[in-house]
Amino acid sequence: MPLIQVDMFEGRGPEIKREFVEAMTRETCRVLKCEPGAVQIILRDVKKSDWASSGVLWSEKK
Amino acid sequence: MPLIQVDMFEGRGPEIKREFVEAMTRETCRVLKCEPGAVQIILRDVKKSDWASSGVLWSEKK
Amino acid sequence: MPLIQVDMFEGRGPEIKREFVEAMTRETCRVLKCEPGAVQIILRDVKKSDWASSGVLWSEKK
Amino acid sequence: MPLIQVDMFEGRGPEIKREFVEAMTRETCRVLKCEPGAVQIILRDVKKSDWASSGVLWSEKK
Amino acid sequence: MPLIQVDMFEGRGPEIKREFVEAMTRETCRVLKCEPGAVQIILRDVKKSDWASSGVLWSEKK
Amino acid sequence: MPLIQVDMFEGRGPEIKREFVEAMTRETCRVLKCEPGAVQIILRDVKKSDWASSGVLWSEKK
Repeated sequence: MPLIQVDMFEGRGPEIKREFVEAMTRETCRVLKCEPGAVQIILRDVKKSDWASSGVLWSEKK
Repeated sequence: MPLIQVDMFEGRGPEIKREFVEAMTRETCRVLKCEPGAVQIILRDVKKSDWASSGVLWSEKK
Repeated sequence: MPLIQVDMFEGRGPEIKREFVEAMTRETCRVLKCEPGAVQIILRDVKKSDWASSGVLWSEKK
Repeated sequence: MPLIQVDMFEGRGPEIKREFVEAMTRETCRVLKCEPGAVQIILRDVKKSDWASSGVLWSEKK
Repeated sequence: MPLIQVDMFEGRGPEIKREFVEAMTRETCRVLKCEPGAVQIILRDVKKSDWASSGVLWSEKK
Repeated sequence: MPLIQVDMFEGRGPEIKREFVEAMTRETCRVLKCEPGAVQIILRDVKKSDWASSGVLWSEKK
């Protein structure tokens, strides 16, 4: 019953997301030996102004 | 100090959410033997276009 | 497709956990109008030495 | 590689968030002895109507 | 900067996990057009006695 | 009511964790203008064999 939660920068459209969940589910089933119906994926769009690395928000990186 | 994080499809109004957190808190306290003040609940609305099962986004299921 | 993730202090046995997920699922279905099969719950045991409130770990509260 | 995920009430502006991630990163590096480049922070704005304590949504507390 | 958090039943060994993070990272980079260095994955082993669906812990399903 | 969830490599002892939650709570209150009693922190120890970046588990990096 893998549960996959993905945070990514906002901005990806529905076609990219569709391809992404297809690929993630396919690879999960192949490697973990589970059924597609067991794989749940939740995508979370994150604004660049809500994500920091090295202490700097991505909205402010140059 | 139970912390309950709930992802659900977006679209529930404030009355449903009010009843939901009341019920979840009441049952948590009853079963886990804790005080209501110890129970934190965070609700996260998820778009059908951000949740997949079986490799298909719910926005695209027929 | 509600997904419920619960952090609680470690120490609850299997009977309490069984009763807890039964109650949470029942109330979720009743209030959110969904099928039991749609409800996923993940429980996470947290040590008192890994949970702080007011800046103090629960393992060190008196 | 600390990963810090923070839920807070919505409403903080970019200057507060900038100062917050700076301070959190600085203190994380100081105490955990790691490089700033290793610290990831994700901020999540939560509506008062999506956060409950004591069984009551914060949007309805008086 | 995708962050991928995966809950799965405990029991997978290091070789499966190695292959899993390789595949997930490769597909993420291919579909989302990002560098491997941007992809973080955290795996969480969950006991069957801590995961429920349909209101029943997986440790008690027959 | 900030909620702070921190994933870090396992291995930090109770003194480091105590200092860490003190510092995080103090800075959170200072910057976000909230009371210490409102700040919850959950620490999650992650094994190097459960955390990957660039597609490689940290347990296998050289």
